[in-house]
Amino acid sequence: MPTQFQNRRRALAVEMRRAEVDGLLAATPANWFYLTGFTGEAGAVLATSRKATLVTDGRFTAQAREETTGISIVQQKESLFQRVGELARSSGLRRVGFDPDIVTVAQRKSLQRGSGPKCRWISMGGLVEALRSRKDGAELALMRKAAILVGEVLESVIPMLKPGVREMEVAAEIEYRMRKHGASGPAFESIVAFGARSALPHARPTSKRLKKNELVVLDVGVILCHYCSDMTRTVYFGRAPERVRTWYKAVQEAQSAAIHSVKAGVTCGEVDAAARQVLASYKLGNLFVHSTGHGLGLEVHENPRVARDQKQVLEPGNVITIEPGVYLGGFGGIRIEDDVAVHSDRREVLTRTPRNLIEL
Amino acid sequence: MPTQFQNRRRALAVEMRRAEVDGLLAATPANWFYLTGFTGEAGAVLATSRKATLVTDGRFTAQAREETTGISIVQQKESLFQRVGELARSSGLRRVGFDPDIVTVAQRKSLQRGSGPKCRWISMGGLVEALRSRKDGAELALMRKAAILVGEVLESVIPMLKPGVREMEVAAEIEYRMRKHGASGPAFESIVAFGARSALPHARPTSKRLKKNELVVLDVGVILCHYCSDMTRTVYFGRAPERVRTWYKAVQEAQSAAIHSVKAGVTCGEVDAAARQVLASYKLGNLFVHSTGHGLGLEVHENPRVARDQKQVLEPGNVITIEPGVYLGGFGGIRIEDDVAVHSDRREVLTRTPRNLIEL
Repeated sequence: MPTQFQNRRRALAVEMRRAEVDGLLAATPANWFYLTGFTGEAGAVLATSRKATLVTDGRFTAQAREETTGISIVQQKESLFQRVGELARSSGLRRVGFDPDIVTVAQRKSLQRGSGPKCRWISMGGLVEALRSRKDGAELALMRKAAILVGEVLESVIPMLKPGVREMEVAAEIEYRMRKHGASGPAFESIVAFGARSALPHARPTSKRLKKNELVVLDVGVILCHYCSDMTRTVYFGRAPERVRTWYKAVQEAQSAAIHSVKAGVTCGEVDAAARQVLASYKLGNLFVHSTGHGLGLEVHENPRVARDQKQVLEPGNVITIEPGVYLGGFGGIRIEDDVAVHSDRREVLTRTPRNLIEL
Repeated sequence: MPTQFQNRRRALAVEMRRAEVDGLLAATPANWFYLTGFTGEAGAVLATSRKATLVTDGRFTAQAREETTGISIVQQKESLFQRVGELARSSGLRRVGFDPDIVTVAQRKSLQRGSGPKCRWISMGGLVEALRSRKDGAELALMRKAAILVGEVLESVIPMLKPGVREMEVAAEIEYRMRKHGASGPAFESIVAFGARSALPHARPTSKRLKKNELVVLDVGVILCHYCSDMTRTVYFGRAPERVRTWYKAVQEAQSAAIHSVKAGVTCGEVDAAARQVLASYKLGNLFVHSTGHGLGLEVHENPRVARDQKQVLEPGNVITIEPGVYLGGFGGIRIEDDVAVHSDRREVLTRTPRNLIEL
């Protein structure tokens, strides 16, 4: 029986024929894992319609042999990309796709040096990414678990929010509990932001201590069996003043509107607009300084992007975050984020945690 | 008084004149932090002899204003690199350096599209990296603390090594204690590898449980105030058999020889050879499958590389790891790693933890 990885390589071969290339370079950890199961940190996969070759270095060859089946493994010390080029030449490839958003100027040169002039390297983003964006049942099952796990961890640390606790302590506890519950780690540096720091959408945990009457933004995700989750909840440490309540209500309505707009066949721009319109109706549009969401899977940011005017159409198997927020410099921020899967006939909110404003 | 960041930008201006460019693009988080103090995850800095401009997106502009002084901050939604190109044009720059190992093919195109044809983008790696490789006293003081901190954490978890404990549990505990002791996090995914898994130099922690008579490799590092440490110790869970003792002795002698060869003016290749020769004398040369070490600082892998035939000469202020190892597939691995700073008149081993074989 073919492994899931062999199935994916077959699906890629179909995409390669469609794109009129006889080879494709996969040069990111997520892409080579998706195609081969290799979890090493350095390498490149050259896929053709008939076979896949992983080029990696001595630190990872034993691991690669253990993790993969049905592919060739080549150990290379110096220029990995030149070796990939040489493989393209020895395989007689004439047109090989590479992702110009991934491959550096130096790597591009090495590829050509290795392959010689008869092989054309064609800029083409996203063949593997497009496959990855349509999760199958097994992937969705893992993502469901990853979303639930992080929700449980987030809820479990709420009682830690006491006067004097530091952002870093809460972040450390969150990441510890993630691992204790089976995650291989956080999907990104956990955001724990108190008071005015919560106005920074990507705040890093500091030694700031929690004080009464501060907003708390918790934006956290886990990696569970390679798949990411991502969620945000906002807490008010005290009894929330009227302005915070109104803003929270606006963000919650915006998030709800965006979630309800998620449907196979709808463009990502329409989902983004659904959130944006609600915030505009509250005159908060200018305080929503980022996109509504992003795809989620082996990477915490992947296709599709859920941003203004994005024409990409949602497909069954897509998993996206929906995370509108408002931010007032010097005061604080409010964001609510859930993970949502697109099915052919429905949407599924993977995050199970309640979304109401928590007042402590 | 100029900040350390302003001093660094001045030092860079000198390097730029020497390299005959009137602008330089810094496009990695470590490089833009080094030059400006900005800790955001997306951006690019265009430095000229007179000023520096940070281009970033809406998620990070408030944070950038808070973290930096004396630079311009430009908020950009879509093509960040095209905007950098436009800035180069509006500043009248004619020759701007960029790192071909960092800048992607697509970014290179955007730079040119923005700058127009009158600006030449010159491939030149490593101007900022070269400055970064020569740490000043304040940086060395932080790296000393980072090295000591991780050593204390590593020693503190040794009692956890009991039959049945999982690699992941030990890794989680290590990273939790790092944070509890003030680290902002691990410098890389902590390696906790039991038994045959220790033969994988970059093993990821799994749910494997510890059994009697297994090797344990612990390779861990912290980030403390932005600076990384990196160390490895090997434990034998039981009474080590003769082969393990001999191999351990060989690795320890190789490490010691390499450390003693560290000196301003020596090439990195000579340091690598010092370790390699000892292992060859034990007929273990072919089991040492990676380089002897790497530079360490804001990033866990930076200049200089301590590898075979490297001609780069060690300079005062360099901090490198020394980490020879031997690996036998199916059986296990042994590695010992310390961080070493190069001074004008001496070497300083930053890692304070004993290096003897620990038998439990």
